[in-house]
Parts: sequence; C-alpha cells; structure tokens
Amino acid sequence: MSIEVFPVNDLPIFHEDDDFPEEICKKFDFEEGDILCVASSVYSKTKGFMKKMADISPSEDAKRIAEKCGEDPRFVQMVLDTTEDLIIEHPFILSQVKCGHVGVRAGVDNSNVEEGIIIYLPPDPMGSAEEIKNRVKGLTGSDIRVIITDTCGRSFRRGQTGVAIGWAGMTAIRDFRGDTDLFGRVLEITEEAVVDEFAAFSNFIMGESNNGVPAVVFRNAPEWKGHDELYFRPEEDLTRKALKNLK
Amino acid sequence: MSIEVFPVNDLPIFHEDDDFPEEICKKFDFEEGDILCVASSVYSKTKGFMKKMADISPSEDAKRIAEKCGEDPRFVQMVLDTTEDLIIEHPFILSQVKCGHVGVRAGVDNSNVEEGIIIYLPPDPMGSAEEIKNRVKGLTGSDIRVIITDTCGRSFRRGQTGVAIGWAGMTAIRDFRGDTDLFGRVLEITEEAVVDEFAAFSNFIMGESNNGVPAVVFRNAPEWKGHDELYFRPEEDLTRKALKNLK
Repeated sequence: MSIEVFPVNDLPIFHEDDDFPEEICKKFDFEEGDILCVASSVYSKTKGFMKKMADISPSEDAKRIAEKCGEDPRFVQMVLDTTEDLIIEHPFILSQVKCGHVGVRAGVDNSNVEEGIIIYLPPDPMGSAEEIKNRVKGLTGSDIRVIITDTCGRSFRRGQTGVAIGWAGMTAIRDFRGDTDLFGRVLEITEEAVVDEFAAFSNFIMGESNNGVPAVVFRNAPEWKGHDELYFRPEEDLTRKALKNLK
Repeated sequence: MSIEVFPVNDLPIFHEDDDFPEEICKKFDFEEGDILCVASSVYSKTKGFMKKMADISPSEDAKRIAEKCGEDPRFVQMVLDTTEDLIIEHPFILSQVKCGHVGVRAGVDNSNVEEGIIIYLPPDPMGSAEEIKNRVKGLTGSDIRVIITDTCGRSFRRGQTGVAIGWAGMTAIRDFRGDTDLFGRVLEITEEAVVDEFAAFSNFIMGESNNGVPAVVFRNAPEWKGHDELYFRPEEDLTRKALKNLK
C-alpha cells in the first residue's frame, strides 16, 4: 500500500490568536492515524511566540556577539534568551534550545512575519504537538499523530532540511534492536530517527517562499516502536564538544 | 494533488550481477517523472562493490586504528581504501569518500550480506544514478528521476536517517535565491537539500531489517530548480575542521 502525502492547501495567512488546528481541519478531512506535520514558524506566530525588535534591549554580550557575526544585537538578544547552551558564536550563532534541538540562531527567524518582528521556536514543542493532536481529536473525533518541524542546516552537507522538534502519538526513534538482517544476524544500525525523516519530506512540500504551505499530512504510514531520546546528551555529543573547542 | 510513495514489494534477494533496475521494472509500473530511490547497499551488491574479509591484508595504519576503535583491522582497511579524507579515527571512524559524502566507517557495511563479506558504497554514485535512469528508460520508455541513498548518523541528534549520495534527473539543492516571503522580502534561507529530504523519507519505507525494501518510488513530485553543490568544500566546513582539531 502506498503512503499518500497531502499539502493542506488554501490556508489563510495566520496571525496571533488564530486557531491553527481549526483552520487546518476546515481544509482537510483527517482520517485515524494520519500524521500531520506543522511548520513551527507558523504555529509560533499563532501562539504569539514573537517579539517586536523595538522592544528588545540588547545586553553587552548580545552586542559583542552581534558585532562578531554581523547580526542585529536585538536579534542576537532574542537568540540568547531562548538558548540553553551556546555552542559557537562565530561565524554564526549555533545553540541548543531548551527542548534539546540544536540550530543556527536558535531557530529565531524573521521570514514570513511583518517587518520588525522576530519569531522564536515554540518553547515546549512536545506540549505543542500534544495540544494540536488533542485539538484535532476534539474537532474531528480522529486520533491523529503530530510532528512540529523546523528547518535547519547540517554538518558536511549544504542546504537546509526539515527536522522534528516536537511530536505526539509516536516515538521519535524507531528501534531495530533485536531485529535481524537477511542472514539472521543482529543489526548494527539499530536506531532510525523516523520523526526527522517525516519532517524532512514534509519540508519539501512546505516550501519556504510566499507560496509555502505550513501543514502537510501523511496517510497510511505504519506505526513503529522505539523511544524518544532524539537528542544526544551533551557529554556524548562529539560534534558539540569539537565545535566548543574550536579556536 | 498528493504525492504517492510506493515501496517496490516482492523483489528477490539480490546477488552479484543481478540486473537491479530490471527486477524493479518487473515489479513496478513506472510513470514519467517518478522518482526512484535505491538503497546503495543493495545496488553495490549487484555491482560487486564488496570484498571478502579473508582477502584483505590490513596495513599497520589499519591495525592501529582498529585497535583504537574496536573494529576488525580488515574492515578498517576497507574503510581506508574507500576514504579520501579521514576526519576522525576514534571513537568511530568518520571519513569523506571520493564523491564528497561524509559517513561513519565510510559507509562500509556488513549487514544483509553473507558472513565474511563487506560492502562498500558505489564509487561513482552520480554515474550509478544516471545508469539506473537510463536502464529504466530503455526497459520502459519512461523518463524517471533516480536517487541513490545511504543511511547515516548526524551531529547533535541520535539515530540514522537516509541521505542521498547520487542523483540523476534533478538537482540536489532547491535554490530559493531571489524568491520572496509573504511580505515581499528576499528569503534568508535560500537553499534546501531536496535530494536528502526524499532520501530521508524513502529510508523510513525501506526499513533496515530482514523485511527491508531496497527501492521506493515517489509519484507526482513537482520539479525544482537549483544546483548540485550538496557537499561543503573542506575549507568552508566548520564541523570537519572542529572534529579534526579535536584532541
């Protein structure tokens, strides 16, 4: 059986206090088990996870870093405010936000919002995914699964891809431990970051520009078993250690 | 319109000299523009990109590294043979192969092959993708697009995902440069690694274990414009530099 992937078309431009799940349900008929991927930027906008640049007073630290990486100091202040672990300051700011996700500028963004406004990532994306799941259940009666996505860069490879920052109704990782290969041997590659694989392809459909679509639905995707330990702990994260040591 | 994603089911277990594209065409009716994702491991097997462990004489370097990272020295020798730039030796070997892809153990693998055999990545995956594309055209008359996938880990995040190592009939990167956002401003995120987004989701469908599927087809995917510079040049690759500097 094939998996079908639908853009949710004809959604309005969203503003603060809009009911994002309700608008999606008006445009799309969910079935039990569907996986809804939602762009964190648009979700953040409806939830008011944004700030006016004019209302931000940058600290000395923000000014120093802004100078180094050529950003607006108020933008950098917003990045620092949502950062839990600052990994590098230059040539770009790379940091870990509270939920565990590591991204350039902590995912703070000024695309697709009004001039002078910046958006930050949902502070509790797991809770956000659960909230959207429950809201869709309430509106439609359907038990769906939800992934909140962000777009970010990678090591070694150019270009951004979609990644998951929150999920509900599934585990982040599919765990093959104990499974065997074609020849009966226990597999060495045992953990697959399934939520990121869905987030990646949903990002292709979402696009980035003015004709972007902030919601994508996967239908007929099987379930899997695993766990939610999607992020390396800092002490086991070799890249983080290496980048922090970089002169 | 939705995008449909099909596993190519009921394929045989493949051996050296099997005609992989022909077997796929026996089980799947291609349409013009379909995107076929192919697992590099199975493609390598049909092409004989593998070696008997017993035929490998490890060098002193291979023995030294094997000792450090707890691998078989012959396995390490195969990794070194396909490596163009060794990034780290320990706690695992991370290196860049000739095509530009960076992976743990240079993508050398012993899953889903007979005992005592190891598989290496296709040495020219761009050529392989083109060859599969042409073969399907010859067999079916359909112009399809092809991605060769590998499975590998990432920085910061646990778990493997699918990535592209070769492609034909498309560009690796979708380039939004010049596009504007909802409010008419030129986008800051301008490059999207689309081939990796397809490879990632195809990997979810392929699976890793004994019921794995080595070929997945995407139907109705739109075309995009961009370029093929998927890999950072070493001198612009911060993570590579940082990992090489790590004590």
